[in-house]
Amino acid sequence: MNKKGIIAIISGFSGVGKGTIVKELVNRYGYVVSISATTRKPREGEVDGKSYFFKTQEEFEQMIKKDELMEYAQYVDHYYGTPKKYVMEQLEQGNDVLLEIEMQGALKIKEKFPEVSLIFITPPSVEELKNRLINRGTETMEVIEKRVKRAAQECVYMQEYNYIVENDSLEVCIEQIHALLQSIHFENKNQKNLIENIRKDFDQYR
Amino acid sequence: MNKKGIIAIISGFSGVGKGTIVKELVNRYGYVVSISATTRKPREGEVDGKSYFFKTQEEFEQMIKKDELMEYAQYVDHYYGTPKKYVMEQLEQGNDVLLEIEMQGALKIKEKFPEVSLIFITPPSVEELKNRLINRGTETMEVIEKRVKRAAQECVYMQEYNYIVENDSLEVCIEQIHALLQSIHFENKNQKNLIENIRKDFDQYR
Repeated sequence: MNKKGIIAIISGFSGVGKGTIVKELVNRYGYVVSISATTRKPREGEVDGKSYFFKTQEEFEQMIKKDELMEYAQYVDHYYGTPKKYVMEQLEQGNDVLLEIEMQGALKIKEKFPEVSLIFITPPSVEELKNRLINRGTETMEVIEKRVKRAAQECVYMQEYNYIVENDSLEVCIEQIHALLQSIHFENKNQKNLIENIRKDFDQYR
Repeated sequence: MNKKGIIAIISGFSGVGKGTIVKELVNRYGYVVSISATTRKPREGEVDGKSYFFKTQEEFEQMIKKDELMEYAQYVDHYYGTPKKYVMEQLEQGNDVLLEIEMQGALKIKEKFPEVSLIFITPPSVEELKNRLINRGTETMEVIEKRVKRAAQECVYMQEYNYIVENDSLEVCIEQIHALLQSIHFENKNQKNLIENIRKDFDQYR
């Protein structure tokens, strides 16, 4: 029997490095990242079914109505959401699926799909988070202060996560999260088939 | 600040190989195994405070009374139990502690100490468990049948465990459990200090 994949959401404060971590997990170990659906127009170079599933507003609202999304939200006149179908297909094929989603969306998914594991990536300190945002050199101090303020608000969600991993050294953090994802396979909720098979196997001895 | 160790109970059916696995985890990676207290007399070569903490019946009953044991049970006129003090000292020193305990004892400990992680090691099949017991060559078929029958009873406890790991190849299983124990450090319940520190750190930005 094909072993089913696991599904994990990776969240963290803006600037913590989660984008890089997810990209490396995909490149090095073949994890699959879920593809979002959106009603915004494709940008230069974006491919339908790869960058996003591009949908008309009508199509997207049909997906909502038919409960085909794990979660969705509206930003600046456009819908963004996570289609169930793609994720479920990948899981059935035995692939482990990563979702990079912000905290409120993550908690909404966890409520509906308790089999999901929530992983939170945190910087070692707020000081360090600020330094990383400054060193990027892409934002003004005003924007950076705004991001840190937002992180201060978001940090209450941290305690709802199943696993908290510190990103001190990027290299160490990538390997730790890879090991963690492998270990999540052993969680009781992901071993229901094995438990059931062993129980049945023992029936003749009872 | 010194990082506190984690505490994990390793259980499994008789013959699954958990003794070897725990021994290898200690030898290769320096995990600490909890030392039991007992009222039975030391056997040749057994050292007090290393093999067991040897106690008189009176001393043991005092330990029960003073709630100094994580769990205890009586077998064939003798008490056996897990002293809290040794485990807690090791955790404080930052050592990860393994307890090799049978299932009912494990569940009793989990109830009292929810921070404990329960790991269950299972054979790939009942057939395989029987083969291993036969290949040991130390027991009669009658004893082996009894052990399998007992495992058939015990297997209802399996679903109460946090993690279920299959011991198909011993070498793979040792490495998987080592990775799992490392990942357990990232569990929310073991990251309370980090969560608290980050929250405090953000206070100035709220």
